[in-house]
Amino acid sequence: MKKFMDEKFLLNSPTAERLYDAIADMPIVDYHCHLDASEIYNDKHFSSITEVWLGGDHYKWRAMRNMGVEERLITGDGDDYEKFVAWATIMPYMAGHPLYHFSHLELRKYLGIDTPLNERTARAVYEEANAALKELGARKILEKAGVEAVVTTNDPAENLAYHARLMKENFRVKVLPAFRPDKAVNVEKAGFSEYVSSLSKAAGAEIKTFADLKRVLRERLQFFIANGCKATDHGLDYMPSFVPFSDAEAEEVFRKAMSAMPLTAREADGYKTNLLLFLATEYADRDIVMEIHFGCKRNPNSAMFAKLGADTGFDCIAGNTNADALYPFFDALERTDSLPRTLVFSLNPNDNDELVTVCGAFNKAPYKGKVQQGSAWWFNDNKPGMERQLTAYAAGIPIDTFIGMLTDSRSLLSYARHDYFRRIFADFLGSLVENGEYPESDIEYLEKIAKDVAYNNVKAYFGI
Amino acid sequence: MKKFMDEKFLLNSPTAERLYDAIADMPIVDYHCHLDASEIYNDKHFSSITEVWLGGDHYKWRAMRNMGVEERLITGDGDDYEKFVAWATIMPYMAGHPLYHFSHLELRKYLGIDTPLNERTARAVYEEANAALKELGARKILEKAGVEAVVTTNDPAENLAYHARLMKENFRVKVLPAFRPDKAVNVEKAGFSEYVSSLSKAAGAEIKTFADLKRVLRERLQFFIANGCKATDHGLDYMPSFVPFSDAEAEEVFRKAMSAMPLTAREADGYKTNLLLFLATEYADRDIVMEIHFGCKRNPNSAMFAKLGADTGFDCIAGNTNADALYPFFDALERTDSLPRTLVFSLNPNDNDELVTVCGAFNKAPYKGKVQQGSAWWFNDNKPGMERQLTAYAAGIPIDTFIGMLTDSRSLLSYARHDYFRRIFADFLGSLVENGEYPESDIEYLEKIAKDVAYNNVKAYFGI
Amino acid sequence: MKKFMDEKFLLNSPTAERLYDAIADMPIVDYHCHLDASEIYNDKHFSSITEVWLGGDHYKWRAMRNMGVEERLITGDGDDYEKFVAWATIMPYMAGHPLYHFSHLELRKYLGIDTPLNERTARAVYEEANAALKELGARKILEKAGVEAVVTTNDPAENLAYHARLMKENFRVKVLPAFRPDKAVNVEKAGFSEYVSSLSKAAGAEIKTFADLKRVLRERLQFFIANGCKATDHGLDYMPSFVPFSDAEAEEVFRKAMSAMPLTAREADGYKTNLLLFLATEYADRDIVMEIHFGCKRNPNSAMFAKLGADTGFDCIAGNTNADALYPFFDALERTDSLPRTLVFSLNPNDNDELVTVCGAFNKAPYKGKVQQGSAWWFNDNKPGMERQLTAYAAGIPIDTFIGMLTDSRSLLSYARHDYFRRIFADFLGSLVENGEYPESDIEYLEKIAKDVAYNNVKAYFGI
Repeated sequence: MKKFMDEKFLLNSPTAERLYDAIADMPIVDYHCHLDASEIYNDKHFSSITEVWLGGDHYKWRAMRNMGVEERLITGDGDDYEKFVAWATIMPYMAGHPLYHFSHLELRKYLGIDTPLNERTARAVYEEANAALKELGARKILEKAGVEAVVTTNDPAENLAYHARLMKENFRVKVLPAFRPDKAVNVEKAGFSEYVSSLSKAAGAEIKTFADLKRVLRERLQFFIANGCKATDHGLDYMPSFVPFSDAEAEEVFRKAMSAMPLTAREADGYKTNLLLFLATEYADRDIVMEIHFGCKRNPNSAMFAKLGADTGFDCIAGNTNADALYPFFDALERTDSLPRTLVFSLNPNDNDELVTVCGAFNKAPYKGKVQQGSAWWFNDNKPGMERQLTAYAAGIPIDTFIGMLTDSRSLLSYARHDYFRRIFADFLGSLVENGEYPESDIEYLEKIAKDVAYNNVKAYFGI
Repeated sequence: MKKFMDEKFLLNSPTAERLYDAIADMPIVDYHCHLDASEIYNDKHFSSITEVWLGGDHYKWRAMRNMGVEERLITGDGDDYEKFVAWATIMPYMAGHPLYHFSHLELRKYLGIDTPLNERTARAVYEEANAALKELGARKILEKAGVEAVVTTNDPAENLAYHARLMKENFRVKVLPAFRPDKAVNVEKAGFSEYVSSLSKAAGAEIKTFADLKRVLRERLQFFIANGCKATDHGLDYMPSFVPFSDAEAEEVFRKAMSAMPLTAREADGYKTNLLLFLATEYADRDIVMEIHFGCKRNPNSAMFAKLGADTGFDCIAGNTNADALYPFFDALERTDSLPRTLVFSLNPNDNDELVTVCGAFNKAPYKGKVQQGSAWWFNDNKPGMERQLTAYAAGIPIDTFIGMLTDSRSLLSYARHDYFRRIFADFLGSLVENGEYPESDIEYLEKIAKDVAYNNVKAYFGI
Repeated sequence: MKKFMDEKFLLNSPTAERLYDAIADMPIVDYHCHLDASEIYNDKHFSSITEVWLGGDHYKWRAMRNMGVEERLITGDGDDYEKFVAWATIMPYMAGHPLYHFSHLELRKYLGIDTPLNERTARAVYEEANAALKELGARKILEKAGVEAVVTTNDPAENLAYHARLMKENFRVKVLPAFRPDKAVNVEKAGFSEYVSSLSKAAGAEIKTFADLKRVLRERLQFFIANGCKATDHGLDYMPSFVPFSDAEAEEVFRKAMSAMPLTAREADGYKTNLLLFLATEYADRDIVMEIHFGCKRNPNSAMFAKLGADTGFDCIAGNTNADALYPFFDALERTDSLPRTLVFSLNPNDNDELVTVCGAFNKAPYKGKVQQGSAWWFNDNKPGMERQLTAYAAGIPIDTFIGMLTDSRSLLSYARHDYFRRIFADFLGSLVENGEYPESDIEYLEKIAKDVAYNNVKAYFGI
């Protein structure tokens, strides 16, 4: 029996341990997350472990609701200690759940606590954790975690003031923005015209037409790049069907949307196809990375959405992700040599095998893994999900191409997940040697793969 | 090498054995099966093991056909011994098939036979089994299996006479009906108007309109509940698209269907959406459980359907299950606070990951796991299928919420499958401790989870 | 730790070793591949390992592109040694990729080289391999691999001259053609009318109508059968929706296609349904096997297609395979007792579970596994893909029915994959004994299964 989450956690062979040792302390480039640059700039301190863990982590909220915890102790007016106890109480009932691992890893790595959390240990852990947090602000947490760079996710209308300040003061952890123009893409969603107004205001430029919108988005992109942006992101509910609308057709859709007229699915897809092709070409021209996230059913529980808003623990996996639409999209870009380096994420793990092949069909020199599937995302960000993604990836595309882990998190303590991934990845490679599927004599190559995937690749891929 | 199916069967660690010991003898609440209450009431005895095993188990028939056994020895006029030998002969060629495990477990647990079944042992096993069956009627089998409650599946037109008699005589195994109004829902299927007539007759009430039908269904539901009903069930080929028809629109579809006029897919879906919303609200009002089974392609082989009818071993997994339609359905119910406790089953295991998230988005206090994915169903009811379902469930929703196993079976000997599940579940939990993913010091919590999932949860969930 | 790819490669228990020993040297019936009969007839010799490995294997080309190797060293004017070094250099970075195993197995089994291939060993391996190849022509490779029969894939317009010559000279390895009329089926694709002309010419018969086309295809089928054909194959991008067009309707589609008029999806599906039903009935009448391959997205990268043509490493898995359309297709055939022995392959592994049930619903005596899912195909032809397919198959249909492995390859060295499969299959069965899921006392039955799946079944199934 292995000890609970000790230094050999998830490492099942001497080779796995050796590979892990080689990468455990490599720096972290977190190429996609939802941290707030102002919290880093202001070196935010936390009043309690409850604030860190339960202040905004809707992943935990969801688990609490599933266990029947009352909303008062989740997003309601329960006090910090009550809420923490509610969380601690359900902990031991989450065997096999990633939050069980993440929470204990975070306690160990950042707060120096190795007590299994449960109702009985809640009081002691709460006090220990709060004491430890007193010493830790946002900046120290990042440094302690070995973070070299953080890429936040930002709307084109943002002014990036805190990114600029951090850059100016030369904070040793790079904090870079990513350009995420979802609200300009999602033409069929409520609030589109309001968003266009606010973007217009932020940019100080009139947006009367679709052509205006494109021009402003290009300007904002340039502004982002001037502020260190290396990556963009598109969060799409599903991959839009490839409907190659002309600019004139897209203008007409834009006009309708600005007048709050209803759009057909074809109109929305045509608009999106036009805009995404335009943006991708801009990204390629500027040599920055395009990320595409799709397959998420957002806000399906409208009663709770009305009460709590978005990102509160209700989003789901979509069954129909329309992943096949990636083919004509990539093809159209490649035909004009305008396909940027691209990362694709589907929330539905059934897409894994297809995505590996899609990406593999659009790779070319001089890039290693120019187009690739991103790390197991969100509901797949756990041991079985990662193993499934890695297995599919390695069987379809040389695994040395992979840029590896990201947190996609709102929480500063989430860097423990990079350690989690590194352990799983080291074990994945180590097991090949253990099973006679890879020669021990070539272990140095395996170490090279481990280091590439842990750190070297992501750094080169984004040019950070 | 482990011994063949001994007491440590499927248990791969001391922790797994310990957890299994804690639950092995807990009572069974079989919340969904297809037993016949009259057979229990009449304490049916079986003429031979052939009658028990091959009299109606289309799962075995299918396996025999796949191996090329002639139909005469499956559903034809072969005698009992011939048929048994035909089955015994293919047994050893089913390595890795759940029926290989189920059959041997049943021989061991209920008939005291631990000989591996094959052509050579067929004669001896046949005689031993028949001798043992002489001592076992339906009631003794249930008692011997430790069954506390059985939930049968019943059409609203049934009179539940045997359920009532069993309740009256206070038989120590509760035999409760479940309300399954599929024939009233499947408006597009042949025989709809005939069914409405028979329901009308059974209820002693005229059904001229859709409003009449709803009223009668509500009355039958009340009658069922008066006879111990705690659960309902809907067997849907696919999840109907959410088409929110008004009562007037649904009336019009009803009228067409009663006149055997053809319906469009949209009309059928609109009718079903209206009726399912109505029924779900009734279930919520009465605090009983709704089960939804979908993703089954029924009777695809029409030549054999013409010869043998339904449920004879030809049903299949559907590729397109339309699981996404659960989102608006649950949402509409939740908006009016009318979502009952709900169990969802898809026959297509590709839906596992999505279903875990769908359910997780509609859970709330005070229930633990109010909406949840049911146990691995039918073609998934086997070791790899269960492990896949448990892994997805535990990674997405705290596993302690799970209400666990059911038989879904027509055979009284099938209770061995509960033992099968308990072993797999104990091993699933035990391996977490073994791998250092759960602290041995918290083993009492793990025992609590094991007991909850084996027995406590299902009892509380249904209020049995 | 196991030694790298030694005699126990992939065998994890003594039972697995024993089962493997029983089948390791059985002959190979490769029922589906893309070898060129003329190369066998002419006993082709290879100028270098580069020609064998990298001359036409687009699977390796793809991996090289994914690693960022420049096209010059893939399909360009790089010399043989440069190209080999480029391949050797990426080898060690492909941990977990099937080509890593395949390449090393081929070196060991056919060229007597057991050095792990990498940049440093490239020179020595190149020389050793080339020296070994001098002694090996196409015929000797087949004999050395223990191949009993090879089934090539051929267009109806082919004259089968080399098959006839090989048959006439009684070469000890049977080289049989398979009938693959894709170009006559894919009515919507560019080049249809040109193909009909070339078929007309090859057949020496006018094709003015759809009826003519059917007649000519039937004649070509008879010609193929006279030349040893036991199998047919259909490569479909997706399974066409079942649209039962009359002959008159199909004639009209044919007429349009011959005039290069655009077709609707429904017209193409209707034409295909009519033609596939016709062909399947012809196959059933002549007692030969129908293979259906679907779920492949072909040539998605049109820029590279324009440069390099088809089968150059860009094909992908399709997300929407339309597998549900198999139900009405098989049903229509079964209704008229015209369903031939049929093998189904989907490139999308999500279809595995459905396919196992579809096939299981159309099996009947006297055949064992009359309709069945083929071995893990192409992007699934690797250890995890095979294990996934075997697990799904064995849980749904008695595994003894399975006809096992094929190469589907263009390369003569690919027979090593049969060894790979046999190891994985022996381990799959052996692990059941090891885990107590199958009695060691019935090991002779397990050996029978191993031999059936390795050799006996495929021989009986095709009547070779």
